[in-house]
Amino acid sequence: MNKNTFAQTPPMGWNSYDYYDTTVNESQIKANADYMAKYLKEYGWEYIIIDIQWYAHNAGSMRKKFQYIPFSELEIDEYSRLQPDPKRFPSSINGAGFAPLAKYIHSLGLKFGIHIMRGIPRTAAHNHTKIKDCSVTADMIADPSSICGWNPDMYGVRNTSEGQAYYDSLIELYASWGVDFIKCDDICNTNIYPENQYSAKHEIEMLAKAIQKCGRPIVLSLSPGPALIDKAWHYEKYANMWRITDDFWDNWTLLKDMFYRCELWQNHVSEGCYPDCDMLPLGYLGKGFGEERVTNFTKDEQQTMMTLWCLFGSPLMLGAEMTKLDDFTLSLLTNKKVLAMLTPDCKPKQISLDDTKAIWFASNNKTNKKYVALFNLSDEIANISVNLEELDILKTEVTLTDLWTNNSSKNINKIISKELAPHASAVYEIYL
Amino acid sequence: MNKNTFAQTPPMGWNSYDYYDTTVNESQIKANADYMAKYLKEYGWEYIIIDIQWYAHNAGSMRKKFQYIPFSELEIDEYSRLQPDPKRFPSSINGAGFAPLAKYIHSLGLKFGIHIMRGIPRTAAHNHTKIKDCSVTADMIADPSSICGWNPDMYGVRNTSEGQAYYDSLIELYASWGVDFIKCDDICNTNIYPENQYSAKHEIEMLAKAIQKCGRPIVLSLSPGPALIDKAWHYEKYANMWRITDDFWDNWTLLKDMFYRCELWQNHVSEGCYPDCDMLPLGYLGKGFGEERVTNFTKDEQQTMMTLWCLFGSPLMLGAEMTKLDDFTLSLLTNKKVLAMLTPDCKPKQISLDDTKAIWFASNNKTNKKYVALFNLSDEIANISVNLEELDILKTEVTLTDLWTNNSSKNINKIISKELAPHASAVYEIYL
Amino acid sequence: MNKNTFAQTPPMGWNSYDYYDTTVNESQIKANADYMAKYLKEYGWEYIIIDIQWYAHNAGSMRKKFQYIPFSELEIDEYSRLQPDPKRFPSSINGAGFAPLAKYIHSLGLKFGIHIMRGIPRTAAHNHTKIKDCSVTADMIADPSSICGWNPDMYGVRNTSEGQAYYDSLIELYASWGVDFIKCDDICNTNIYPENQYSAKHEIEMLAKAIQKCGRPIVLSLSPGPALIDKAWHYEKYANMWRITDDFWDNWTLLKDMFYRCELWQNHVSEGCYPDCDMLPLGYLGKGFGEERVTNFTKDEQQTMMTLWCLFGSPLMLGAEMTKLDDFTLSLLTNKKVLAMLTPDCKPKQISLDDTKAIWFASNNKTNKKYVALFNLSDEIANISVNLEELDILKTEVTLTDLWTNNSSKNINKIISKELAPHASAVYEIYL
Amino acid sequence: MNKNTFAQTPPMGWNSYDYYDTTVNESQIKANADYMAKYLKEYGWEYIIIDIQWYAHNAGSMRKKFQYIPFSELEIDEYSRLQPDPKRFPSSINGAGFAPLAKYIHSLGLKFGIHIMRGIPRTAAHNHTKIKDCSVTADMIADPSSICGWNPDMYGVRNTSEGQAYYDSLIELYASWGVDFIKCDDICNTNIYPENQYSAKHEIEMLAKAIQKCGRPIVLSLSPGPALIDKAWHYEKYANMWRITDDFWDNWTLLKDMFYRCELWQNHVSEGCYPDCDMLPLGYLGKGFGEERVTNFTKDEQQTMMTLWCLFGSPLMLGAEMTKLDDFTLSLLTNKKVLAMLTPDCKPKQISLDDTKAIWFASNNKTNKKYVALFNLSDEIANISVNLEELDILKTEVTLTDLWTNNSSKNINKIISKELAPHASAVYEIYL
Repeated sequence: MNKNTFAQTPPMGWNSYDYYDTTVNESQIKANADYMAKYLKEYGWEYIIIDIQWYAHNAGSMRKKFQYIPFSELEIDEYSRLQPDPKRFPSSINGAGFAPLAKYIHSLGLKFGIHIMRGIPRTAAHNHTKIKDCSVTADMIADPSSICGWNPDMYGVRNTSEGQAYYDSLIELYASWGVDFIKCDDICNTNIYPENQYSAKHEIEMLAKAIQKCGRPIVLSLSPGPALIDKAWHYEKYANMWRITDDFWDNWTLLKDMFYRCELWQNHVSEGCYPDCDMLPLGYLGKGFGEERVTNFTKDEQQTMMTLWCLFGSPLMLGAEMTKLDDFTLSLLTNKKVLAMLTPDCKPKQISLDDTKAIWFASNNKTNKKYVALFNLSDEIANISVNLEELDILKTEVTLTDLWTNNSSKNINKIISKELAPHASAVYEIYL
Repeated sequence: MNKNTFAQTPPMGWNSYDYYDTTVNESQIKANADYMAKYLKEYGWEYIIIDIQWYAHNAGSMRKKFQYIPFSELEIDEYSRLQPDPKRFPSSINGAGFAPLAKYIHSLGLKFGIHIMRGIPRTAAHNHTKIKDCSVTADMIADPSSICGWNPDMYGVRNTSEGQAYYDSLIELYASWGVDFIKCDDICNTNIYPENQYSAKHEIEMLAKAIQKCGRPIVLSLSPGPALIDKAWHYEKYANMWRITDDFWDNWTLLKDMFYRCELWQNHVSEGCYPDCDMLPLGYLGKGFGEERVTNFTKDEQQTMMTLWCLFGSPLMLGAEMTKLDDFTLSLLTNKKVLAMLTPDCKPKQISLDDTKAIWFASNNKTNKKYVALFNLSDEIANISVNLEELDILKTEVTLTDLWTNNSSKNINKIISKELAPHASAVYEIYL
Repeated sequence: MNKNTFAQTPPMGWNSYDYYDTTVNESQIKANADYMAKYLKEYGWEYIIIDIQWYAHNAGSMRKKFQYIPFSELEIDEYSRLQPDPKRFPSSINGAGFAPLAKYIHSLGLKFGIHIMRGIPRTAAHNHTKIKDCSVTADMIADPSSICGWNPDMYGVRNTSEGQAYYDSLIELYASWGVDFIKCDDICNTNIYPENQYSAKHEIEMLAKAIQKCGRPIVLSLSPGPALIDKAWHYEKYANMWRITDDFWDNWTLLKDMFYRCELWQNHVSEGCYPDCDMLPLGYLGKGFGEERVTNFTKDEQQTMMTLWCLFGSPLMLGAEMTKLDDFTLSLLTNKKVLAMLTPDCKPKQISLDDTKAIWFASNNKTNKKYVALFNLSDEIANISVNLEELDILKTEVTLTDLWTNNSSKNINKIISKELAPHASAVYEIYL
Repeated sequence: MNKNTFAQTPPMGWNSYDYYDTTVNESQIKANADYMAKYLKEYGWEYIIIDIQWYAHNAGSMRKKFQYIPFSELEIDEYSRLQPDPKRFPSSINGAGFAPLAKYIHSLGLKFGIHIMRGIPRTAAHNHTKIKDCSVTADMIADPSSICGWNPDMYGVRNTSEGQAYYDSLIELYASWGVDFIKCDDICNTNIYPENQYSAKHEIEMLAKAIQKCGRPIVLSLSPGPALIDKAWHYEKYANMWRITDDFWDNWTLLKDMFYRCELWQNHVSEGCYPDCDMLPLGYLGKGFGEERVTNFTKDEQQTMMTLWCLFGSPLMLGAEMTKLDDFTLSLLTNKKVLAMLTPDCKPKQISLDDTKAIWFASNNKTNKKYVALFNLSDEIANISVNLEELDILKTEVTLTDLWTNNSSKNINKIISKELAPHASAVYEIYL
């Protein structure tokens, strides 16, 4: 299986983290899946992803002190593999795991994904638990010096055949559940080891091999970021998407910073290979973190974000609680002309970037469609412009269609220009 | 002008440095050009490049103490532009510059290139020399804190319109001489500033702009390496080739190390954009350095080098004194089947790499030809093999043609395998 | 000569930089010297120091664009040695140098110091100027790759006997002028080379040797900071004082930061060896920089600064224009009880430091006097206290004399405590 | 209690690690203590120190694979405190701990020390074990992201009052056993965190506080090295000795390297504060590591090591199995004239150091005795010399006593000089 065929366009879906933190449960997952099937599926949205600590019994119960309670009880099977917390995921009882929930989501025409931490549970190592189809116990597979800097659940796995046996058994289980997407964390950038932030390189390869063996096309998504540009070739060889940023939230500084991250990764978008700008913090957010809120982004900033993610070719993972989506947010997610840019056929290219503005261009090498986006990164109204020559277009007159308003107009000198509010943007299809 | 059209395949040529150091003169250049025209041109070799300090009066005269004599006399025109040393380049007198020599080389059907240091001569700054078409003198353009760590000739140029005027005047002059290729040094990695090794980013852009303005297609080659992988997008936007290694010489450790450099840059070869493995230290070398020698590489190592450079898609710049080439070396340079891999249509892909071996694969996306190379990196005879599945070839039987011996054979199980001497290699075209 | 005897207590003086920048002239120096002799000498103030570019003809004339004009004209003798600009220092004509001015300052009972940049003038290298008592010219002594990152005047000197000859000739000249103090710049931390910030180590040793040879006790002060703690042993072996901070100005953040610098260097104060907190930006400042101002420090901050410098044992170099000193500032400089702490017999010791407060203790190992200082580093009024046990004082009752108010009081429990305004402090002598 | 009084001279003793690795047992400890009492005590040797993993049941049983078996069984009490393995230390049964063994050692007139890892056992955290006199269990005290990079036994302790309670209970227990010396590991340089190698700073302070509270003078020794020079003030404030090197073994490169470490720390030796050059790998070594051997150091190198350690003022911790000591080694350990330098009254000073030689000087500021040592660091016979002026001795003629041979001689010119074999040295007392 060529892993690039698992994700021929950037994956589009929903992730539980931004709203639920560690606390999401089965009925909440179903409610969001129902919404997606009804309102978003036709636009390409298809993944429903359960984020971190679905296996932790008391997840969220000491939230003011700990996001992840240290040394607390985890649901785990006899082979050292984490299982869903049966209180939160009742259908998982009697060893069913996520199979019933996956089945439900598949029945809606959607796909099912889960978050995992790289490694093996620390308790399995301390308890010398068995590994499936393997002669040694967890203490011989776990590396006691390989930990995650921000989550206490796991030890890294040693680069041995026994370690591979553990990962094989894990992916075999997930495939049997019907998992379509794995977001593996603490693996893209193991930031506790600043001088070796790629310390889990072998675990990426072990996961990729296990997926090849399992026979099911499972998209492999790596977190957290920022991904390491000198490992671009390795991400491209083994994974489908990798986070190019640390956790992204509804904060203008982070959004502005994303332009520098996209600059860095602009030549790395291809079929099955997607630099990932992280989730879209739109709509209602933060309930599991203790304070539910509506996104702090202005409407202009939200549109700027959607424009950049789509033109650049980032996966789109919605962070909002979908059952509470308002019309404006929905309109951002269902603009077919904007979403048409979201394909690796469409090669993104940064034309310029400075502290006050950015210009991006994209050209679809199959359809030959051309796009240009103007971004006002400053805190004041500004006229943002680009010369057609900078886009290698030698004509003087072109027709422009504004993808968000659907208005078309002739552009009769060589300059495309628009007055934009602070943090606002415009994106045009260019007809020669 | 789209700069990528200036070099539609990796440039092939000869460079004076490896043999002559700083001392090459006009008759030596002509002799090498004559040889290339007669024996190598038909295989694609075309550039004749004069390397560093063609402007220095006493170049090489204190070689035991200094490679570049500090504060010594340079030939310079009234506009702060370096000119050929008339003693070594007699045809340059009366302000002719390199125009007569370029004309001669063009008359042979070859192309002409020169090495430059980024910046403006230090003496011009201290003497307040004029800048062509510019209101200020050199002291206002030179940046006194921007120097080269290993050559004392120049100051970096400030990022101002006056600085651009200087670079414009420089490239205008070179274009008028008929220069086809510029190797600009101290610019790809300004290694005196370890925390900002891309300190001359603006000078790359200024050079690229000046070339656009001059109207002549001039290949822009950046040195020294190692190039910075996080600036890959910037090299790709402004230059045609960039050194991915520090100076490369006839030393196995450096050659072995190149496999790691090619690993890093494998997804960055495209039309007009070539990561550069540096010159080929073959044949007679080192005369200008004080001790003429024949390359220290074994024949196996030489073939390994040629195989890697060609499959990877590096520019080929011969370092040998051509008038002394022997038959074996000539055979390395004139193998049409091997040189056929040297095109950006042929995408290189590392299959595996460890301390003892490397496997590379390439596939020409126009002709659909496929190549695989096996490298024995160890110091012992070893059987090196690759499974066709690793190359995404699902057949069991294929036909292989050894590109160096031209022998063909059927390969009837899925494994391609060969026993190789230490540091030796084999490269095959695969017929499905 | 034991260099530690040149400065048996931390040097106290005045430096022209904070007020005049590069522009000070002879009459201004004399006016300040007159003031010091009249009002400050009896308190220990004795050095008059001319800071940077006394040799530059047009110093300050392009101040908006350059602090140091690149490639501009410097006064220089036949032996590559910089000389005072005769326009600004009329007494220096006919080769007299600073001898007449030094003589005047000595006549007031004061001492005379100058600032120098390490190295040899760039123009001397480019012009191949002679070196006194040396067989080679300046181009062979100057290192073209050793420059200062922020001043364009000099090249570093090579570590050769010819380089030593240059430094010997330089110090011989200064000794003949009557120089008592040299502040050498770009030498303590050569910050243009972040991976080798001690790149001029050999020039420190060459200067120290030249001073030993010259026969005159000349205090050697090294700039800029921050000094490198891993070179503490080297500063202590060769210099009398070294800057532990980058340029210090009248800014609370810098002053607060100094507590962390003093923490680092607290065990490195001894006779002839003084970590240097830099000049005291009091009174009138900044005229040469283009905007004369009164110090931005509040009175509380000024007192905090004086307390820390004196208790810690830093050299005291006044930055204010002395002829404009007001009574409050004068009172800060002439408190004999506070200045009594300024001796290496008085060992400073940090008791505690956090973001809101600091406590320092000092004990004079000759007189047995004990001092404690309380600092409120927060932006609010706060009660700052220390337990006598933390000072290794086992008594319950002590008598305290406030050094700034001269009030004495009994302290009857073990806690010394005071309510302090934001950024304010108190310092007490403790009588057991 | 002033912690500096706990160790008025550099501690001298024996440590089990170099010979026994993790495996030493009670009878072996006693045998070595008996030897020390009989043959070495009169020369100042007094500490018997049990090194790492005295609490691990299977220590050493998988030595080819692991030095420290991950997740294996440790002896631990109800309060999360490690206890001696009763199989190896039979007298520790019934909760006696090391008290009986300490009593035995004290009965010989010696002192007793143990090695500990900073932190709390990982199993205590996972098992939620109690903490003495504390309201929370071990899981709330342990920091799951604070681990040791090379030993899997412990988690770091949080900087909270509950964390302090744990350390207080630990030191209270050790004091009750009669412990005189604690070598705490993974605390001086927590090298798993290269960007914060002082991550356990708070644990140093907590240990120091616990020792103050316990009422027993316990020497605090910190490992591993290299200690951080920018934390010198902090080590000096809280500890008695700190390792300035990573593990030191019988290897000339490491010994030569120690000269650079001593250079760095030369001004940091004072009463109660000792930079620690690590154990003396003399005599029989390595049995617990799987291959018993006699030290690889030549006799000259052994003498060079002893000379440097004593002149510099390092603690002396013998690594040899004492029951197998030969006469030569014993003579190195019992030279009273050499050991007389081992006092903080004797201030060490490096005179010079380069790749081929080192010169050290020391002067006792109470007795006024002066010493000079010459070291040949090259691999050839060399004449090593020093001028008396470099030692600030202005006389021409002095008398020298060679401390190792006890020969005296007049030195009649200003040069002290000796021909020395490779890696050999000489040390003299100088009589003026």
